[in-house]
Amino acid sequence: MTVSDTQALPHALYVFAHPAEHSLNRHLFDAARAELENTHTVATSDLYKMGFQPLLSPADLEHATDSGAGFLENWIAAQHAGELPADVRAEQQKLFDADLLVIQFPLWWYGVPAMLKGWIDRVFGAGLGTDGVDSETGLPERYGAGRLAGKRALLIVTAGEDARTLGPRGISGDLDSILFGLRHGTLFYSGIDPYETHAIFNADGLDPEGVAAEVTRLRTRIAGLATEEPVRFRTLRSGDYRPARALREEFAPGRRDLEIHRA
Amino acid sequence: MTVSDTQALPHALYVFAHPAEHSLNRHLFDAARAELENTHTVATSDLYKMGFQPLLSPADLEHATDSGAGFLENWIAAQHAGELPADVRAEQQKLFDADLLVIQFPLWWYGVPAMLKGWIDRVFGAGLGTDGVDSETGLPERYGAGRLAGKRALLIVTAGEDARTLGPRGISGDLDSILFGLRHGTLFYSGIDPYETHAIFNADGLDPEGVAAEVTRLRTRIAGLATEEPVRFRTLRSGDYRPARALREEFAPGRRDLEIHRA
Repeated sequence: MTVSDTQALPHALYVFAHPAEHSLNRHLFDAARAELENTHTVATSDLYKMGFQPLLSPADLEHATDSGAGFLENWIAAQHAGELPADVRAEQQKLFDADLLVIQFPLWWYGVPAMLKGWIDRVFGAGLGTDGVDSETGLPERYGAGRLAGKRALLIVTAGEDARTLGPRGISGDLDSILFGLRHGTLFYSGIDPYETHAIFNADGLDPEGVAAEVTRLRTRIAGLATEEPVRFRTLRSGDYRPARALREEFAPGRRDLEIHRA
Repeated sequence: MTVSDTQALPHALYVFAHPAEHSLNRHLFDAARAELENTHTVATSDLYKMGFQPLLSPADLEHATDSGAGFLENWIAAQHAGELPADVRAEQQKLFDADLLVIQFPLWWYGVPAMLKGWIDRVFGAGLGTDGVDSETGLPERYGAGRLAGKRALLIVTAGEDARTLGPRGISGDLDSILFGLRHGTLFYSGIDPYETHAIFNADGLDPEGVAAEVTRLRTRIAGLATEEPVRFRTLRSGDYRPARALREEFAPGRRDLEIHRA
C-alpha cells in the first residue's frame, strides 16, 4: 500500500474490551482488525491492555475550573475548555478522527463489561457529541445530530447463549433491546449510526471448526461494510416525537417495543 | 430498639454507586438508609467510598485451581471451591445474608455506572445463584430459581430526563426496557424478584422543594416495602418458554416488547 493509498483511506477506531490474553474474543479481534486494515487506517483502544481507568469520578475534574454549579455543568464546561484528563482527551480525539467506530466485547450479565462502560462514561462524558443546539428544533443536538453525526459504528458481541434465547421473544430479551442503551441511547444519541450488531452466539461452546467459521463470517462482514447501510433510527429533528418526547401515536400505534424507534 | 428486636429484623444490603461527596444521590442514600434501618438490619456497599475494584480479569482467578478448561469453567470451579478473591467473597456473603437488595445509582448513558457494572460482573460472576440444576427442568437453575431465590430487590435510579422521555414509547426507551438486563437478566436470572423501579426523574433540575419531595417519596416507598408485591416475571420452570427458549406464541401473541416476560 502506498502513502497516497493510505491517505485516501477512511479512519476506524477499534475499541476492544476483553481481559484474557488467549480467548475467542482476542482471536476474533486480531482477525477483524487485520481485515479492517485492508480498507481503513485503524486506531485501537485495547482497553485492558492499555490499563484504561474506567471510573468516572470527581478526579476527572480536578484540573478543571469549578463553576460552582453541579457536577454535570462542571463536566460540560471542562469538556469545552479542554480541561478533562489527558487519557479522556486522547480517546475523544481518536473518536473524532474516526469515520467508523468498532466496539467488540463479551456480553456479561446482559450488558457491556464494566471496562467498556467506563470508557463510555468517561469518553462520552456529559454529552461529547451534543454540546450544540439544533438550529431546527432549538433542542440540544442529540438523537441523530451533533458533532459526531455522519460516523458509523459496528458492535461485535460474543454471547454464551443461543440466537433464540437472545432473539425476539427470547427469555433473555432480544439482543437489540438489551443493547438499546448503547446502540441508540449512546451512539445514535451522539449522532453515530450503528450497523446491525454482529453477534457470535454459543461463544463458550465453539469447537475449532466453529471458531474458524466465525472468523470467516466476521471478516466477510467487515470486508463488505462499505456497501452496507446502517440502521436508521428516527431523529429528534424529524418531529416524530413532538410535542412530547414520546413517539406520536400515528407511528407504530399500540406498540411499546423498542423497534418503534427505527425510521 | 432492643437486641431481640434486632435479631427479628430481616437483613438488607444497600449497594450505592455514585462518586460525589455532596450530591442528590448521596442525600437520597442517607435518607433511604435511615428509613430502611427502621425495618431491617442494613449492610452497605458504598462502592466508590470502599474503593471497590470493578474490573473482572484473570487476576480474579490467580489463586484458583486452573482446570485447563476455559475462563468460564475456571470461574465456576473457583466459585464452588471458595477460591475467588476476598473482596468478591465478602460481597457475595453480604448478598447471601440479605433478604432485600437495594441498588441505587445514577443512570449514565442509559445504563449503570461502570463501578456498579463491575460489582455485578465480579460478584454475580459466572452464575452466583445458578450453580445447581433445576430438578423439574434439568436445566441450570435460572430465571426464578436458584440459590438466591426468595430474595427481593429494589432499584433506585436518578435520571436527568423526564418520565415521558424515559416512559413507554419515549425517545430514550422506557426505563424498564433499558434496565431489563439488570432487573430480569441479572436479578431475576439469579432468582431475585425485583420491585417496580423507584425512579427520580429530572434529577439535575430539582430545586430544594423538589429534593425534599423526592426524599419524602423515597422514604414512604421504603417504609411500605414490606407490604408491596414485587414484579413477577415468567419463570423458566413454568414451561412458558418450552421447547425453545422463546416465549410460546399463545402468550402475548404478536408482541415483541419486553413486558411479555411478566407473568
